[in-house]
Amino acid sequence: MVQAARSSRDLREDCVTEALSIIEERGVEHLSLREVARRLGVSHQAPYKHYANRDALLAEVVARAYHDFASHLDARTRHEDPHRDLAELGQAYLSYARNNPLAYRLMFGTPLPDAEQHPGMMREGRHAFAILRDCIVRIQQTKTPARAVSPDLDALFVWALVHGKASIQQTDALNTLGLSDEVLADFEHHVGQRLMAALDAQI
Amino acid sequence: MVQAARSSRDLREDCVTEALSIIEERGVEHLSLREVARRLGVSHQAPYKHYANRDALLAEVVARAYHDFASHLDARTRHEDPHRDLAELGQAYLSYARNNPLAYRLMFGTPLPDAEQHPGMMREGRHAFAILRDCIVRIQQTKTPARAVSPDLDALFVWALVHGKASIQQTDALNTLGLSDEVLADFEHHVGQRLMAALDAQI
Repeated sequence: MVQAARSSRDLREDCVTEALSIIEERGVEHLSLREVARRLGVSHQAPYKHYANRDALLAEVVARAYHDFASHLDARTRHEDPHRDLAELGQAYLSYARNNPLAYRLMFGTPLPDAEQHPGMMREGRHAFAILRDCIVRIQQTKTPARAVSPDLDALFVWALVHGKASIQQTDALNTLGLSDEVLADFEHHVGQRLMAALDAQI
Repeated sequence: MVQAARSSRDLREDCVTEALSIIEERGVEHLSLREVARRLGVSHQAPYKHYANRDALLAEVVARAYHDFASHLDARTRHEDPHRDLAELGQAYLSYARNNPLAYRLMFGTPLPDAEQHPGMMREGRHAFAILRDCIVRIQQTKTPARAVSPDLDALFVWALVHGKASIQQTDALNTLGLSDEVLADFEHHVGQRLMAALDAQI
């Protein structure tokens, strides 16, 4: 039943919820304001009150995914020791990827609207990257002599490794390579060990 | 125009070509033998002469992607020095991912048919992994004393890092983080340096 008196605020939220359903069920290429309106049982024009176009709605959905993701990283257990903090951050990243496959795919596996047109979209994405970068800076400060490596570069290295770990874990390919259960069970721990060794190395 | 006399071998090949088009245009969830037949202008029953069901056709498409990928890795310039060989292998992996996004997504980003039901599907995937593993074994043999780390685990570590690098490079997110052009230009080189340092570390 279509609600007779859906408030303006409700419609704004309902559009986001419906957009997520469309993306999950049919893929991001099927997202349109017309389809959102159809599924909500409102007029074709109604969503335009809140979103200038389809990309504006998608940018809002993506911004919320990044907000949720960055909040999850911020909520991790904190450690004084930056190496332990980085390990905790890696765990938080991997658990988010595992438990929120749709949001994860939206952030990192989906063509995004133009970030310059939608400047709010990536605000929390940049915050998430800054969390990682700050941790890298603190690790670099433990070294004597101080390291000259760009913390941005090391943050990209860590992101690539942890993202790759999460992605491979989600592939069907991993379990078809004839690897032993022991190797599969040790994968995450081993990646963590190699990651720390890499960051500690003088290059 | 539908060909009057399409040979049996042609139809087998045409099904693969058409399956790839469907996956590229509409996503793997839209692949069906019925849709392949419709687009080829043949009877609904015709594809069943070559493929028992939709998964059998998808397994054939995936097997060919792995074959193509492994051949590309095998065709790399060879180096006696296993560190140089690993660097070359990483380049080959990344260039394949860049130039063959559909095959890459099929191998590593798509739900695959049951590998036990389709034992040929992953043969070349296992071969590709063996190429990497052999290179790791040769690197380990350069160490004194010999290392006790499982080459499978180090191969998984390298795969995660290179796969993550390739995936991040393909995201729209990477270019919206406010990173300098210099950092983005150094990303690949830096990952290579950290990778080698990680493998050389005693853990």
